[in-house]
Amino acid sequence: MGRIICCGLGPGDPDLISVRADRAIRAAEHVAYFRKKGRPGQARCIVEGLLAPNAREYPMEYPVTTELPFDSPEYAAVLARFYDQWARRLAEIAHEADVVVLCEGDPFLYGSFMHLHTRLQGRAVVEVIAGIPGMVGCWNAVGMPIALGDDVMTVLMGTLPEAELSNRARGSDALVIMKTGRNLAKVRRALQAAGRLGDAWLIERGTMPGQRVARLGDVDPAECPYFAIVLVHGHGRQIELAAE
Amino acid sequence: MGRIICCGLGPGDPDLISVRADRAIRAAEHVAYFRKKGRPGQARCIVEGLLAPNAREYPMEYPVTTELPFDSPEYAAVLARFYDQWARRLAEIAHEADVVVLCEGDPFLYGSFMHLHTRLQGRAVVEVIAGIPGMVGCWNAVGMPIALGDDVMTVLMGTLPEAELSNRARGSDALVIMKTGRNLAKVRRALQAAGRLGDAWLIERGTMPGQRVARLGDVDPAECPYFAIVLVHGHGRQIELAAE
Repeated sequence: MGRIICCGLGPGDPDLISVRADRAIRAAEHVAYFRKKGRPGQARCIVEGLLAPNAREYPMEYPVTTELPFDSPEYAAVLARFYDQWARRLAEIAHEADVVVLCEGDPFLYGSFMHLHTRLQGRAVVEVIAGIPGMVGCWNAVGMPIALGDDVMTVLMGTLPEAELSNRARGSDALVIMKTGRNLAKVRRALQAAGRLGDAWLIERGTMPGQRVARLGDVDPAECPYFAIVLVHGHGRQIELAAE
Repeated sequence: MGRIICCGLGPGDPDLISVRADRAIRAAEHVAYFRKKGRPGQARCIVEGLLAPNAREYPMEYPVTTELPFDSPEYAAVLARFYDQWARRLAEIAHEADVVVLCEGDPFLYGSFMHLHTRLQGRAVVEVIAGIPGMVGCWNAVGMPIALGDDVMTVLMGTLPEAELSNRARGSDALVIMKTGRNLAKVRRALQAAGRLGDAWLIERGTMPGQRVARLGDVDPAECPYFAIVLVHGHGRQIELAAE
């Protein structure tokens, strides 16, 4: 009887995978990962060179959706069937042997694995190995503490309405904004309205080849970068007392 | 000419250290870490068995403060001198050889290393290796996704005023509350007022020996546990669409 071992891969640099996940990945006979059809897949790219030569791979390719809007109930149903099928398939393999599922960042922080995790309850032994979240790799790329002292840090999605983004930017010391991409122009306006644009950074492909760190104010919002996170650093609500 | 390499140690389990930090720690000739006087120190405990036999250790012991209140300007001055002295000392060692500084969690997320980091600018080459934050280890200990879909996640300190804690608990999908300890009774009241106590977990010594995961409502607030984080999980603002 095997297990399903979900390995958090961290922010992208394979050297930032945990010792335990690295060991599980190198030993894996069965390796599954999500990807878009026709793409190598970010998770698979991170482990390039780590997999055993005889490892069997299971690319879990998201259903193509040219005709269905991404947020339609019809697409949601297609996606639910896709997760159902893969949960069944992985549970079957786990009857015989361990299966490693690769997940970027930390699997429990906005990760796709949760769709399988829910469906696998009671059907297989599931282990999750924590990873360094993508946002942690991004603030390390900037090289400054993201939060200190009694700072409040808010993690939010660029998909939120502009007014909510602005209010939260006003009410938080440190900010992490994910899912920027097509929302970048809106995120920029929201930060400007909150008086935080001057302190905002855009980190693209943090810790990976092609990493780019820029002041958000200097980035053309039409660029719509991929794998990008916006950060605003906290300054330490009370820590100034203890500094020089 | 050496470097000062700050290694994020992750949440506590040495197996959750990154491959890169693990390599740097095992190879280190000079290893520094903060600790309270008379205590082994959490960071040092995590690397037990990893250090080379000839590694030279530099315990950076916080000044004792029985007579000065922790939040007084006088204590802040004592602490600033302490950081000044250690920054000078580490920079001197780094003239000759690499020095590894051990930091629990991720060094840039509420880490003590930042006090040295600021002071070392321009005086030594400083590298920081990201780690899995303590909170990530805690939500992995509970075994449920902390945030999904368009959830807003807020990270805050139990030191904040009760009314602010309550307001933020009301206004956020997922919550991480650090520095609980002596603030636990207040945190509990604030979550109760916000209607979130029923969903709150207390995780003590996450991923470490003696780990404890409990419903916050079941914990005696007088217990004042150490290394404890309170979590309230998000439920996925829009992701329900895509679930079964």
